[in-house]
Amino acid sequence: MDMQINKEVKIIRNEAFLEKAEALDHPLFEEWVRPVRMVKMVADEAAIHGFRAEALPDSPLETAPLGKGDCVIFDFGRHLVGYPSFELEPVGSPPDAPLYFRLTFAEMPVEAAVDFSAYDGWLSKSWLQEDAFHIDVLPKIFHAERRYSFRYMKLEVIDSSPKYQVKLAHIKVRAVTSADQASLAPLHATRPENRQLDHVSLETLKSCMQSVYEDGPKRDRRLWLGDLYLQAQASYVSFQNVDLVKRCLYLFAGLPDTQGRVPANLFIAPEVRADDTYLVDYALYFMDTLYDYYQHTGEKETVRELWPTAKSQLNFAAEHLNELGIMEDRPYWWSFVDWNPDLSKATPTHGLYLLTLKRAASLAAEFEPALVEELTAKCEMGKQAARDHLYDAPTGFFRSGTDHQISWHSQIWMVLGEVVSKEEGRQLLLRTMRKNPEIGLTTPFAYHFMVEALFKTGLKEEAERMMDTYWGGMIKAGADTFWELFKPDDLNFSPYGSHLINSYCHAWSCTPTYFIRKYQL
Amino acid sequence: MDMQINKEVKIIRNEAFLEKAEALDHPLFEEWVRPVRMVKMVADEAAIHGFRAEALPDSPLETAPLGKGDCVIFDFGRHLVGYPSFELEPVGSPPDAPLYFRLTFAEMPVEAAVDFSAYDGWLSKSWLQEDAFHIDVLPKIFHAERRYSFRYMKLEVIDSSPKYQVKLAHIKVRAVTSADQASLAPLHATRPENRQLDHVSLETLKSCMQSVYEDGPKRDRRLWLGDLYLQAQASYVSFQNVDLVKRCLYLFAGLPDTQGRVPANLFIAPEVRADDTYLVDYALYFMDTLYDYYQHTGEKETVRELWPTAKSQLNFAAEHLNELGIMEDRPYWWSFVDWNPDLSKATPTHGLYLLTLKRAASLAAEFEPALVEELTAKCEMGKQAARDHLYDAPTGFFRSGTDHQISWHSQIWMVLGEVVSKEEGRQLLLRTMRKNPEIGLTTPFAYHFMVEALFKTGLKEEAERMMDTYWGGMIKAGADTFWELFKPDDLNFSPYGSHLINSYCHAWSCTPTYFIRKYQL
Repeated sequence: MDMQINKEVKIIRNEAFLEKAEALDHPLFEEWVRPVRMVKMVADEAAIHGFRAEALPDSPLETAPLGKGDCVIFDFGRHLVGYPSFELEPVGSPPDAPLYFRLTFAEMPVEAAVDFSAYDGWLSKSWLQEDAFHIDVLPKIFHAERRYSFRYMKLEVIDSSPKYQVKLAHIKVRAVTSADQASLAPLHATRPENRQLDHVSLETLKSCMQSVYEDGPKRDRRLWLGDLYLQAQASYVSFQNVDLVKRCLYLFAGLPDTQGRVPANLFIAPEVRADDTYLVDYALYFMDTLYDYYQHTGEKETVRELWPTAKSQLNFAAEHLNELGIMEDRPYWWSFVDWNPDLSKATPTHGLYLLTLKRAASLAAEFEPALVEELTAKCEMGKQAARDHLYDAPTGFFRSGTDHQISWHSQIWMVLGEVVSKEEGRQLLLRTMRKNPEIGLTTPFAYHFMVEALFKTGLKEEAERMMDTYWGGMIKAGADTFWELFKPDDLNFSPYGSHLINSYCHAWSCTPTYFIRKYQL
Repeated sequence: MDMQINKEVKIIRNEAFLEKAEALDHPLFEEWVRPVRMVKMVADEAAIHGFRAEALPDSPLETAPLGKGDCVIFDFGRHLVGYPSFELEPVGSPPDAPLYFRLTFAEMPVEAAVDFSAYDGWLSKSWLQEDAFHIDVLPKIFHAERRYSFRYMKLEVIDSSPKYQVKLAHIKVRAVTSADQASLAPLHATRPENRQLDHVSLETLKSCMQSVYEDGPKRDRRLWLGDLYLQAQASYVSFQNVDLVKRCLYLFAGLPDTQGRVPANLFIAPEVRADDTYLVDYALYFMDTLYDYYQHTGEKETVRELWPTAKSQLNFAAEHLNELGIMEDRPYWWSFVDWNPDLSKATPTHGLYLLTLKRAASLAAEFEPALVEELTAKCEMGKQAARDHLYDAPTGFFRSGTDHQISWHSQIWMVLGEVVSKEEGRQLLLRTMRKNPEIGLTTPFAYHFMVEALFKTGLKEEAERMMDTYWGGMIKAGADTFWELFKPDDLNFSPYGSHLINSYCHAWSCTPTYFIRKYQL
C-alpha cells in the first residue's frame, strides 16, 4: 500500500460553499474539569499494553513539592479534549534556575507509562502527546496553548535546582466540544450493557465533535469522509448537531478537484484545505451522508446545492469499473474499506457503489427525476455483474480481486449492496461467521458495517452479540472512549508499527449509540 | 563547599529604594540581526572542547526543505542576547501531522555539536539552552518567547511526516541590551591586540547589560554584586550607563536582611527578590561600587542614601575577624574570591576588607566625618595584624587559613589591601609569578584583581602580558565574548562538572576594556 502524494491535483475552490460552511462554525461548548485522583501506572501482564492505572491516596488537587526526576500523573476520570492549566509555585529558596518539566498526555495507561523516545512507528512521532517546557520565572500560572486529547496527564520535573522544588495547584482542563449536552436525545435502553455501550459511544462522539467532526482528537484531528458518515448517523440519534453535518458537507463540496472529486479528508487550519488523497469509498460516502442528511432533516436546499457534487463521486467511482462492470483494485491506496494491507478492496467497494447508486436514485427521484432510470439501471447491472462474476459457488462466498480473495468484507458489502436477497444475505453472514475467512475485520469501522449487515438481514441477536463482544470487549479492556483499532486476539495491534500512536478516541468507533437508539435495543 | 540555604533569613524591604530602582529601569535597545552564514560543527582535537564551526556554502537566509532528522545551524557571526524568529513554510502535501523541532542555542560550537541528554553536571540541566516545539498549524511565523544567549542557533526536525517537509525563511533575532552604542566613549588604543581585547570586552558587557547588570545572559541571568562591581567599572569608561549602576545599587539596598546585610545576588523577576546567599567579599563590593560611583559621578544624594547600607557590610565582614583581628574561614561558602574549592578565602577576603575600609574612610570624610578616624584605625590595625600573623618570612609569601595555605589570591589581595608597600608589592607579585604557588587563579574574576595589582605596583608590562595571554588566550581559542571560566592549561575546566553549563559571555570577564581605557594602553 502506497500513500498518495498527488502534486498535480488542482482544487477548484467553491467560495460560496466555503462561506456557508464558515457561517455554520459555531463557538464550542466549554467546561472546566478537575482531576479526580492521582495514579501511578503499574506493569500488569493482564492489562492491555501491559499497564494499568492504580490510584494513589494523594489528593489530586495539589501536589507535594516536586524536584528533579519527580513525576505525578493526574487522572481526570474520563476522556477529555482540551487545554490544561495549573499553578506552579516554587518551594524553598528563590528559584535560581529555570524549571524544566515535561507534560505527557495519555488516552491509555501505556502512554503515561513508557518513554516515547523509543517510539519507532511509521506515523510521525509528532503525534505523541508530549511537550517540555522551561519556565524562567516562577510562580507561574501555566496555560497550555496546544489542545490535547487524554484522560491522564503526566508531569515530570526534568530539573529544577538543588535549591528549590515546585508545587502544582489548581489543576484543571478547559474541555471543549461542539456536542451540546442539552440537546442529547433521551436513551430508552434498559439493558446495562447497552446503556454502557451508549455512554462510551457518546463520550467518543463528544470528544470528536469539534469545529468539524474530527476522526480522532489525538490523531489525525481531521475531517475524513468515512468518519463523518458514521458520526453524522450517531449524532442524529444523540446530540443532533445537524449544522455540523451540513458544515462538513459544504466544506467537502467547497474543495473539489478539476474532475469534481472530493478529497478523502480536509485540513481545517490555518484555512480549510484538501488533502491530496482520493479514496473511492470515501468519495461515495459523500452521497451517502447527503442521503442520510435529507432523511433526517428533510431540508431541500442543501441537497439541491450539493447534489452535483454527490453525483461527481459516482462518476469517480465508476472509473474503477472494469469491462465486466465490476470494481477493480489499483496498485495504490485507492479505497479504504479497512486497515489491512492484504485486503482486496474491489468487491467491498463494489458493494458500497451499489448501495450508493440506490440511494442516489432515491434522491434523484426528488432532485433530478430524469436520472432515476439510469441510476437504477446501473445499480441493477452492477448487482448482476457481481452475481455473475464474483460469486464462488463451491464455497458459497463472494470473491474479490485477481487473486479471488475471500474476505469478511466482501460478504458484508454484497449484503449491504443488496446483491443477494435478505434471506441469502442472512445465510451468507452466518456462513461467514461460521467459516471465518482468514481475511477478517480489523477496525471498528469495518465492524460497523458487519453489524449493520446483521441488522439488515434480521440477525438482531448476532448483531447485539457482536456489539457486546467487540465494543463491549474494548470496555472490558478499559476503554473510556472507543478506539480506532481493536483486534480482540491482538490487543497490541497497530497498522502504524506502534500501538502508542493509535487513536484511542476515534469517530468511526462511536456507532453503538446509533444501533442502540435506531433499533431500540 | 556547601551552598547556603538560609530559610530563616528575613528581608526588610525598603520600598522607597526599590521604587527609585524601578524608576531607573529604562526600555532596552533593540536591534534585528540576521544570520551571516550556515555552519556545521566539526570534530577537531585542536579546537576548544573538540569542535569548531565550519562554514557551509548555503545561503543563511533560507533553508532547503527539511524533513525528519535534518539539522541546520545558523551562525549570527557574533554573540547576541535576544529572541529569534523565523517563518516555517511547509513544502509538499498539506502537513498531515504537527511539525516537531528542537532549537538549541550555543555560545560555543560544542553546545551545538553534542547531545544535551548526556549532561551530568551539578547545575540544573534547565540552563542548557534547548527547547522543542510542536507546531500544529503551518505555515507559521515562529517567535521564541524565551530569551536566549548565543552566537549559533541549531534547528533539528525531530519529525514532520513522510508527506511534507518544511522550509525556514526570514530568520532573525531581536537582540536586546541596555548598552547604548551612541554613548560609547571613543577608544584611543592603537595596538591591535588591545583594540581586539576592547572589542570583545564590549561585546561581553553589552550582552550582559539588560534590565540589570547580569552576571551572564545564559546563566545565571542574575544581578551579583561581584559582577556588578567590575561591570560598573567597565561601563564608566565605555557605554557610561550610570543609571544602571545606580539602579542596581538601589535594588541591593532595597533588600537588606534584619542585620542590614545585602545578599550576594538578586532575582529580578517576577519581582526583585534577595537570594538567600550571603558572601562577605560580595557584601564589601557594595561599598566599593558605591565608592566608584561617587568617583565617577560626584553625585551626592545617592551616596548619602546608600551610605548606611554600605556601612552595614563592613560590620557583616567584621564578624568574620578572629581574636587576632584577621578574617577566618568558615566551613560553608562564606566568601567567593575565586572558583576553587581548595582555596582558603580568609587572607584574600582580609585584603579586600582593608581596601574597602580605606575607601569607606574616604567616603566618610564627606558623608560622616565622625567615622573617619575609626575606619582608618581599623584599616591600619588590620594591616598590622596581617603583617604580624599572615606573612611567612621563610617563603616571602602571605599565608591563609589554619593550613597556612599559600595561594596567588592571598598575595594579590595583600597588595590591593596595601598591607605591603608599592615596592614590596611589586616584589611579591614578581615572586608569585616566578614561584607560581600551586593554588592558582581559575576565573577572569580572580585574574582581574591580579592585573589590577600589577598596574597598582607599576608592573604595567606584566599586566599587559597577562591580558594578552589570558584574555587574548580566550580570543585565540575562539571567544566572541569573554568567558566565565578559563584555565589555559585545562580548556575543559568547569567548576560545575561540565563545560556545557559554563557561561561563555560573563560579566566579570569584561574588564580588559577598563584596563585599556583607564591606563590608556
